[in-house]
Amino acid sequence: MKNYFSSNFKLGVLGGGQLGKMLLTETHKFDIYTSILDGDKDAPCAQICNEFHQGSLMDFETVYNFGKKVDLLTIEIEHVNIDALLKLEEEGLEIYPQPSVLQIIQHKGRQKDFFVKNNIPTSSHKRFSNLNELKTETLNFPFVWKSAQFGYDGTGVKIVKNQDDLNLLANTDCIIEELIPFKHELAVIVARNKNGEIKTYPVVEMEFHPEANQVEYVICPARISNEVSDKARNIALKVAESFKHIGLLAVEMFQTKNDEILVNEVAPRTHNSGHYSIEASYTSQFEQHVRSILNLPLGNTASKVAGIMVNLVGSEGFSGDVVYENMEEILKMDGVTPHIYGKKQTRPFRKMGHVTIVNNNLNEARKIAEKVKNTIKVISK
Amino acid sequence: MKNYFSSNFKLGVLGGGQLGKMLLTETHKFDIYTSILDGDKDAPCAQICNEFHQGSLMDFETVYNFGKKVDLLTIEIEHVNIDALLKLEEEGLEIYPQPSVLQIIQHKGRQKDFFVKNNIPTSSHKRFSNLNELKTETLNFPFVWKSAQFGYDGTGVKIVKNQDDLNLLANTDCIIEELIPFKHELAVIVARNKNGEIKTYPVVEMEFHPEANQVEYVICPARISNEVSDKARNIALKVAESFKHIGLLAVEMFQTKNDEILVNEVAPRTHNSGHYSIEASYTSQFEQHVRSILNLPLGNTASKVAGIMVNLVGSEGFSGDVVYENMEEILKMDGVTPHIYGKKQTRPFRKMGHVTIVNNNLNEARKIAEKVKNTIKVISK
Repeated sequence: MKNYFSSNFKLGVLGGGQLGKMLLTETHKFDIYTSILDGDKDAPCAQICNEFHQGSLMDFETVYNFGKKVDLLTIEIEHVNIDALLKLEEEGLEIYPQPSVLQIIQHKGRQKDFFVKNNIPTSSHKRFSNLNELKTETLNFPFVWKSAQFGYDGTGVKIVKNQDDLNLLANTDCIIEELIPFKHELAVIVARNKNGEIKTYPVVEMEFHPEANQVEYVICPARISNEVSDKARNIALKVAESFKHIGLLAVEMFQTKNDEILVNEVAPRTHNSGHYSIEASYTSQFEQHVRSILNLPLGNTASKVAGIMVNLVGSEGFSGDVVYENMEEILKMDGVTPHIYGKKQTRPFRKMGHVTIVNNNLNEARKIAEKVKNTIKVISK
Repeated sequence: MKNYFSSNFKLGVLGGGQLGKMLLTETHKFDIYTSILDGDKDAPCAQICNEFHQGSLMDFETVYNFGKKVDLLTIEIEHVNIDALLKLEEEGLEIYPQPSVLQIIQHKGRQKDFFVKNNIPTSSHKRFSNLNELKTETLNFPFVWKSAQFGYDGTGVKIVKNQDDLNLLANTDCIIEELIPFKHELAVIVARNKNGEIKTYPVVEMEFHPEANQVEYVICPARISNEVSDKARNIALKVAESFKHIGLLAVEMFQTKNDEILVNEVAPRTHNSGHYSIEASYTSQFEQHVRSILNLPLGNTASKVAGIMVNLVGSEGFSGDVVYENMEEILKMDGVTPHIYGKKQTRPFRKMGHVTIVNNNLNEARKIAEKVKNTIKVISK
């Protein structure tokens, strides 16, 4: 084993947002020296990492030069300059997840093709290089349209119900998918290290708002049968073994009406669906990421207690210096931990933080989560 | 409530050692801007706080000027210039723990007198202003000698067995105490906020090495009867209500052969005996410290799982650039989390970190803790 702890070893991270910030908690705990590159000089990580560099993650020279100054490179966001990573890897730098994995996952068309090629159950899809190509196709409405690249948090994804909706789509490289009516949206995080050691976290469930069709709660463990849970974990393992990624892989899935599991998308990094693990799991996803990229033994993925995560997003109608209204009220509730990402400015729907609710009893946690959601508001001064 | 989260509020901390570093995990989580003063430019907090100042904690001007630039001041070590704090407080700065509390606790003679005055059960003691004064006294051997000020981690404490041992003592302001043969050494952490809300953590037990007479494990919950546990928590509450401190108070106690509880010493801050809480408790002692000094509601002090803490101290015979030998081996064990404080140089017995072992089953945790202790070694290159 290399000497990572209180040593001269330098870990590089592309991206200094909230995922990077939560990763820093773990590198601080292990005293692993961490250098971060981000385009925003006020990124959440900027003041609290060992070394911060401002620069574009999409710029070849910037990423390449940053990579030359670190001993191992990882990412907290997948939209980075892959050519720079490929060159760095060729020159001997260890990069996890591997650039080849990022290359597939960055592009939703390639990602879907990869699933098909590896016999991973997924909804049927078709790729198009632009909108006109799509418009010449005979289409079965409704379907799901996805921009092939750079979508996140629901941007770049649309449900297309009819011919008219086509006019709302961007003219870009895209895929269309069969719309899957599902019972549950599930996710499983898989950790894998260079030795090939591999572990899955429990299945989590996204609970949607009955009307708004938005994820309101991420719930661990998912309220599903053991049979469905085992199936989901096994499929996630299969995805991981197909990619042979090093690091974490978050596998998002649908449980269909007849209990089939279909893989929706994957993310090769720590993930919103794993934030509950900071308070609920024996090993948080962020510590697990550190363990897996450094080829350390993986930690226990089981939970100490049930965990529910609520995202804190900017309220509609508020922009400017952020204020977390009723924070004191939620801190009075049992097992409630707010995580404030450190973005000074709120905007409608901007991800500003999250709140974890842990409890021995999942139903109790669910009740408290609802109170949290109805109490705290992200507004501006 | 003041707006502490992602705001212009500035928290000042005197001391940037490991306790400060673990506190930063919590201020980062809440995005509370934190400025730290420490004498060592390479202190564990130096690179990872929002703002770091190098300067002596015992120097009036340094502490006073630092205090003028923050909105609320706390400490991670009690050896600080009290006169500066008293002046800052007079000028309106909120300082927690209060300077008056620090003033009593800083001095072991005053601390013991305070216990006596407030009817807190404690061993009998006598104060002396120097060694000669002590030597003129009729003495009953053995007894415990303590330097009145600046002792920590066992320095400044000696068991005096006979007349000859007196020659080993420093000529300084001191106290002597009755030597208490005890069944267990226990500790309880109490949190109290400005509203007077008050909560105790479970009782922890220090398990000693049978021969070396050194604390090997801090165990939560203590393996004692509910009756003794309730007594210890009530006495800790009484101590806290006597001090009316704001922040945390760690109360160290002896359980005598006939199950009396005697208070040994208190520390007005986060404490080694509470490190287990990071992994085991619903609210870690560091988050609780933040909550209490900011007059936020206190969090749940109960444990999710059993927790055991093992200190990582420099091995005898090694000085220089630190190496954590067999780290990989302990990371393979279940529920094991190392905390590396970030001191680059090891010395014999220097506190370099700690390891927490959590498990649903306390006996299982105890077995793993012993394996951890026998496996990891803090050596030098």
